[in-house]
Amino acid sequence: MAEAATARRSRITPEREAELYTAVLELLREVGYDALTMDAVAARTRSSKATLYRQWGGKPELVAKAVRHNKPGGSLAEIDTGSLRGDLHALTLRSDDCQMEQNSALMRGLAMAVHENPDLLKSFKEHLIGPELAEFRRVLDRAVDRGEVRADNPATEFMMHMMIGAFAARTLLDEQPPTQCFLLSYIDAVVLPALCAPITT
Amino acid sequence: MAEAATARRSRITPEREAELYTAVLELLREVGYDALTMDAVAARTRSSKATLYRQWGGKPELVAKAVRHNKPGGSLAEIDTGSLRGDLHALTLRSDDCQMEQNSALMRGLAMAVHENPDLLKSFKEHLIGPELAEFRRVLDRAVDRGEVRADNPATEFMMHMMIGAFAARTLLDEQPPTQCFLLSYIDAVVLPALCAPITT
Repeated sequence: MAEAATARRSRITPEREAELYTAVLELLREVGYDALTMDAVAARTRSSKATLYRQWGGKPELVAKAVRHNKPGGSLAEIDTGSLRGDLHALTLRSDDCQMEQNSALMRGLAMAVHENPDLLKSFKEHLIGPELAEFRRVLDRAVDRGEVRADNPATEFMMHMMIGAFAARTLLDEQPPTQCFLLSYIDAVVLPALCAPITT
Repeated sequence: MAEAATARRSRITPEREAELYTAVLELLREVGYDALTMDAVAARTRSSKATLYRQWGGKPELVAKAVRHNKPGGSLAEIDTGSLRGDLHALTLRSDDCQMEQNSALMRGLAMAVHENPDLLKSFKEHLIGPELAEFRRVLDRAVDRGEVRADNPATEFMMHMMIGAFAARTLLDEQPPTQCFLLSYIDAVVLPALCAPITT
């Protein structure tokens, strides 16, 4: 059984998978999540709906994996500069300003869809938010081991809240996409002082 | 001319104004910003469209003022506890958990509309975000005067980014409305350490 499943899955090459994800992101930008159909994905990629469902299970999983695939080069796990500041800066510098602008527009649309589609939120948690949190956790654990961050600092629980605020408020209030320069300033002014605070108030 | 304008405006009593804002918020929750029409507001409140336009100029201004009117008791300007922590906690405690949950759902819908309607963003900046920023600025200025916050701390520029992140990530990632308890923890763990940091990294 396991062999049969592997054989079925291996029909899609990594190149073909990348093509499919690119097409899904294009369609998302064009019509949004609600209007995106598996039929449209099948037509755009000249694949069968049966293949799409067999490989991904459904629209939420396909969209979450397409967004994840679009994330910049590799994982945080490859980043280990020797300091928390170095790691967080390196993480920011993986996406250039143009990629961040594109992602920011896409995520803005998906944030709304996530609220209205519990299945999509579930897929996002499994394929995007969960892995990202685990990677931040590893970066933070190393910082704790080095003595940069107190193990009981409550700010470590708010890592994603701090970062999401930077993205959301930047596009909403400042009417500008988040840039590398903006995010590096935010990390230095907000994230590091909170994570490296010596005493809890 | 000025007298005539005052006379026209004074036809609407504060009670009547509050009724209108309540109806606008009801309609926003029912149909969302895009589907909200001045006709529907006129019908729901048994007023004439001419009155609505004369008084508010248009839908963006009416919606921004309705949201502002819904904000909890009075302004930050009335809060002065003698410490930055006290002021930020007092600000949080103005809304109870039930009010926060309702506002959070409303603002989530409006955040999307703001991206798509530049007029609404303009009205929000004028009637909501601008005044709120000015109030935070006064709280921060007092903290600088007391020596709690360095005048050149770059985190002071990110006050709204920090707070918006708490709201956005709480509803999105934690799937829970922001509560007083959550916001007080976030203020203590993130906002105060960033604002009161002794040295810029």
